[in-house]
Amino acid sequence: MIDIDAPPHPFDAAIALAPATDGRIRSRTRPEYANMVGPFGGITAATLVQAVQQHPDRLGDPLSITVNYAAPVADGDFDISARAVRTNRTNQHWTLELTQDDVVTTTATAVFGVHRDTWSDTEIEMPPAPSPDAVPVQGFPDFIAWARNYEMRFVEGAVPDQDAGDHPDSTSTLWVRDNPARPLDFPALASLCDVFYPRVFLRRGRYMAAGTVSLTAYFHADAEELVAQGTDYILGTARTRRFSRGYFDQTAHLWGRGGTLLASSHQLVYFKD
Amino acid sequence: MIDIDAPPHPFDAAIALAPATDGRIRSRTRPEYANMVGPFGGITAATLVQAVQQHPDRLGDPLSITVNYAAPVADGDFDISARAVRTNRTNQHWTLELTQDDVVTTTATAVFGVHRDTWSDTEIEMPPAPSPDAVPVQGFPDFIAWARNYEMRFVEGAVPDQDAGDHPDSTSTLWVRDNPARPLDFPALASLCDVFYPRVFLRRGRYMAAGTVSLTAYFHADAEELVAQGTDYILGTARTRRFSRGYFDQTAHLWGRGGTLLASSHQLVYFKD
Repeated sequence: MIDIDAPPHPFDAAIALAPATDGRIRSRTRPEYANMVGPFGGITAATLVQAVQQHPDRLGDPLSITVNYAAPVADGDFDISARAVRTNRTNQHWTLELTQDDVVTTTATAVFGVHRDTWSDTEIEMPPAPSPDAVPVQGFPDFIAWARNYEMRFVEGAVPDQDAGDHPDSTSTLWVRDNPARPLDFPALASLCDVFYPRVFLRRGRYMAAGTVSLTAYFHADAEELVAQGTDYILGTARTRRFSRGYFDQTAHLWGRGGTLLASSHQLVYFKD
Repeated sequence: MIDIDAPPHPFDAAIALAPATDGRIRSRTRPEYANMVGPFGGITAATLVQAVQQHPDRLGDPLSITVNYAAPVADGDFDISARAVRTNRTNQHWTLELTQDDVVTTTATAVFGVHRDTWSDTEIEMPPAPSPDAVPVQGFPDFIAWARNYEMRFVEGAVPDQDAGDHPDSTSTLWVRDNPARPLDFPALASLCDVFYPRVFLRRGRYMAAGTVSLTAYFHADAEELVAQGTDYILGTARTRRFSRGYFDQTAHLWGRGGTLLASSHQLVYFKD
């Protein structure tokens, strides 16, 4: 039985939207999803997905989103403009901007579309991992507020202790879900695409200035597959291909426990060592 | 010695830009880079990179670009609007739109930035391949005009013959360069990110309706590394993670012959079987 008087899940509070002037949509940063500077990038991506999901013109499910983190979002209200640039028979292209006092902090494009039955196959394998119960909960340092909203059980590549020293590769693999548990949907999946801390911390064994510049997520799963996932753990794995001259990439895959590839994401990260 | 009276390389002709009204930039489709419907997606991406590269406000080198192919570009003139949404100390965020008669056919966002000396490392290995001379030239069917501008030497996963039947995986690896050879630059690298035909053709051993919906390229190399590459062959490799209900992803890596990871790209492709 659902307690209708219960406060909303912090994730739902964080992606809540209200109409604003000029057809824009208003939202607000939440301290629960704060990062070092501004909000967690995942919650911003989730809020942008939600802005299209609840838009009256929306066609189908999210297929991809690219979010460019141009400037930190300040604590407080922000506006989202979401424009359906083109609607085709089976897909739809969106352009989004997040502004504060008419200054753009974030740009995004998204593709939504209708799924059809076709030949299907997953080519890559889910990485081997012990069951979630067999892996201890081990999160981020306490001063990273947003991470407290995720239950993380690292299989490999946990957040290094300060001065842990160099690590031979940049792979982290973890079981993860919302804390408290919450049924999976597209905004939640978008946010999970960004739960992987900057890979350079792992390689170098220490924190340094680093931040996502651009994130692209592909949603391989349709709405039905997300419903089937429910509140179960997701296995996420992330790795960098190349660190070079102030930037690196970071690719992640998110798997349902049964071996369904739910999403893959790619990001470009700035760092200063 | 350069013959200054020689006609420009077809690639340079294809990405040529001229000022248009309202601060927009004009360009034109070229039959040399035509695809089945509209131009090759790679040449559109290259033209958008070029639009920012030659913009007076541009800061640094291209770091990433996302191009959304919302509608086919018709043969003839088109306009590009390129707006520097935000300029930070070391990076810059661009929003671009390609229009014909004020109808948007293509949207894009790009990040440019300044490189700085930092700790660097490439984690993944260049796939093993015989030298380009040891691999026969083997391109696309003749009716794919754009492909004639690339010299392609497939190491694995060449374009299947009609009714080749199912193939166990979606990997193609090939040596590739412009034809005629042309020194590598960022627009050329952007275009090369899209030379991989739809992976579903390889898996299913036949052609079918398929088209890129969204492409994201990360430029790992800086300008100096591209100059060092010159007109040499590039080793490209591409693979899909999941085909599902009308869509699939496709990730590619482009390597310089010496083992420099020049770029990685990701795309979301629509297909109908």
